[in-house]
Amino acid sequence: MRATRKDSTSSAANSGELDLIRHIRARAGQPSGAALRLGIGDDCALLRPRRGEELAVTTDLSIAGRHFRLDWHPPQSVGHRALARGLSDLAAMGARPIAAFLSLGLPRELTISAGGRPAWVDSFLDGLLQLAATHKTPLAGGDLSESPTALADIVLIGAVPRGKALLRSTARPGHSLYVTGTLGGAAADLARLAELQPRRIAKKLEADLAPHLYPQPRIVQGLWLVRHGAASAAIDISDGLSTDLAHLCQESDVAAEVDAALLPIHPAATLAQALNGGEDYELLFTAPANARSPRKIAGVPITRIGRIVPLRQNRPAITLLTLEGSQPLNPQGWQHFS
Amino acid sequence: MRATRKDSTSSAANSGELDLIRHIRARAGQPSGAALRLGIGDDCALLRPRRGEELAVTTDLSIAGRHFRLDWHPPQSVGHRALARGLSDLAAMGARPIAAFLSLGLPRELTISAGGRPAWVDSFLDGLLQLAATHKTPLAGGDLSESPTALADIVLIGAVPRGKALLRSTARPGHSLYVTGTLGGAAADLARLAELQPRRIAKKLEADLAPHLYPQPRIVQGLWLVRHGAASAAIDISDGLSTDLAHLCQESDVAAEVDAALLPIHPAATLAQALNGGEDYELLFTAPANARSPRKIAGVPITRIGRIVPLRQNRPAITLLTLEGSQPLNPQGWQHFS
Repeated sequence: MRATRKDSTSSAANSGELDLIRHIRARAGQPSGAALRLGIGDDCALLRPRRGEELAVTTDLSIAGRHFRLDWHPPQSVGHRALARGLSDLAAMGARPIAAFLSLGLPRELTISAGGRPAWVDSFLDGLLQLAATHKTPLAGGDLSESPTALADIVLIGAVPRGKALLRSTARPGHSLYVTGTLGGAAADLARLAELQPRRIAKKLEADLAPHLYPQPRIVQGLWLVRHGAASAAIDISDGLSTDLAHLCQESDVAAEVDAALLPIHPAATLAQALNGGEDYELLFTAPANARSPRKIAGVPITRIGRIVPLRQNRPAITLLTLEGSQPLNPQGWQHFS
Repeated sequence: MRATRKDSTSSAANSGELDLIRHIRARAGQPSGAALRLGIGDDCALLRPRRGEELAVTTDLSIAGRHFRLDWHPPQSVGHRALARGLSDLAAMGARPIAAFLSLGLPRELTISAGGRPAWVDSFLDGLLQLAATHKTPLAGGDLSESPTALADIVLIGAVPRGKALLRSTARPGHSLYVTGTLGGAAADLARLAELQPRRIAKKLEADLAPHLYPQPRIVQGLWLVRHGAASAAIDISDGLSTDLAHLCQESDVAAEVDAALLPIHPAATLAQALNGGEDYELLFTAPANARSPRKIAGVPITRIGRIVPLRQNRPAITLLTLEGSQPLNPQGWQHFS
């Protein structure tokens, strides 16, 4: 975390940004965890992995109006969700988080407290640092700049025993397909959120909308799968089952069958939301058919939803099996730049 | 580099972003360098440092209108400068770059080629990947999203022998103060750029304005200083000598004297630009007074510009010595959020 550098289009000098950085540095606390040797305050942070470990690295960009809305989402939720996206990527590799970095671009008004209320950025940090503490992830650095659009880019670094990371590219025909938790809850919440008037969420509603506002990355479940050698491939479900399963199949050069009757659909969600709704942040993983998977890992249900099959010409990459017969399941998650 | 996740405010599905990611993945090439085990295409990249190494991590946010201007800077320069900022942070620690990650937020029109001209993003990648190739730094991942404001967050990861990283906090009274290269060139270019009509830079001017448009991070010089144990502390000059020397003094709990007559001022720059102009990306380092520093490292001049002294109450942290006497040198680099 440093003062953002001299600007190409401005020349004023002031101390406001350094104050905000000092504030974040104080809130982030001292480096904790043996892997983080040097945190905020130098040109770089320094990480020292254990012998026999490799490092997993992921970055996730959250932009106002695309990934969150300032008029819908409480700032605590924006901070929580920004970090949850990165943690979920580590979970999908089975990695233990060792450090987070935050690049923050904010309109000036979001950094100012007024009328006795904390500044937006303070509540954002509340949400982010609370989830970071849950997963013992120190905030080790980042960057800060004024920006016309609010945005947060989160970098997560995790450690995993060499050669043991869960990959997307190692699913094989015959393997069973599993998911953690339930599907479609975040999409159902989002649909409900869009109908609220006013859309600013009352405190009493926040718990109800937790699957969307405060998703729980499956770090513990990913670590369990690596420790027990229980998964042959994995991905997190951030863009929706149909899209993320397509990624897994593409990287593994296989096809898949999903049994609609087996899907653990969230009580508030429809089948379509369970298949295509994003931001559930559950894990999708495969295991050899003869492997015994537990019914729960650390309290979260594990459900077999289908199987991996060979990829054949003129056959869909993913087939959905229902009582009415089988049909192709096309990826329907969101992508930009159409 | 992945498809950006399902959006909280949109529901369309399309393949444009995946196409752009495939394009970047193809341009980034296969992972190279023993340290990068897995690049673009999974939930995380995987890095495997050598035994006895620790990792340096830095993030740098570049935002249109703050760090560059779409109507002034050629896209190649924007890509070059975004990466140069991160590489310069590694240089300041004496780290060898092993991987870069790029989070990119772009208005749609910057992703579209028209009239036979390549899309803005393609020329941006030209500039970024050319500098990455110079420093053997693979692009290992990132994120991508449509954004109303163009922005690039760059993450650099470097390796350095354990305990050997150059820090800001280890300068001691009596040590000499050095800089690489010349100072003020980037600021002088920027002043010239602001006077150009039209401001869009003609190809023939680009070489002239290289200190600002294409700064050269001092990776080789940082590695040399670590290998020879030749520096006691270091920082890169991104915000201007006065500001970055103040950071070094603050982190080391010392003061400094700078001799104006010794400063290696860029031929086109004024003393004020050399003292306060940002974005030179030279290294500022200290060494014990009895150490012999080379006059050049890999062709880049090394100049002694002053010394570290004890911090005393009621004395300025930095004193500028001139023929007319001594005066306080206050940090005058740019910071946001005044």
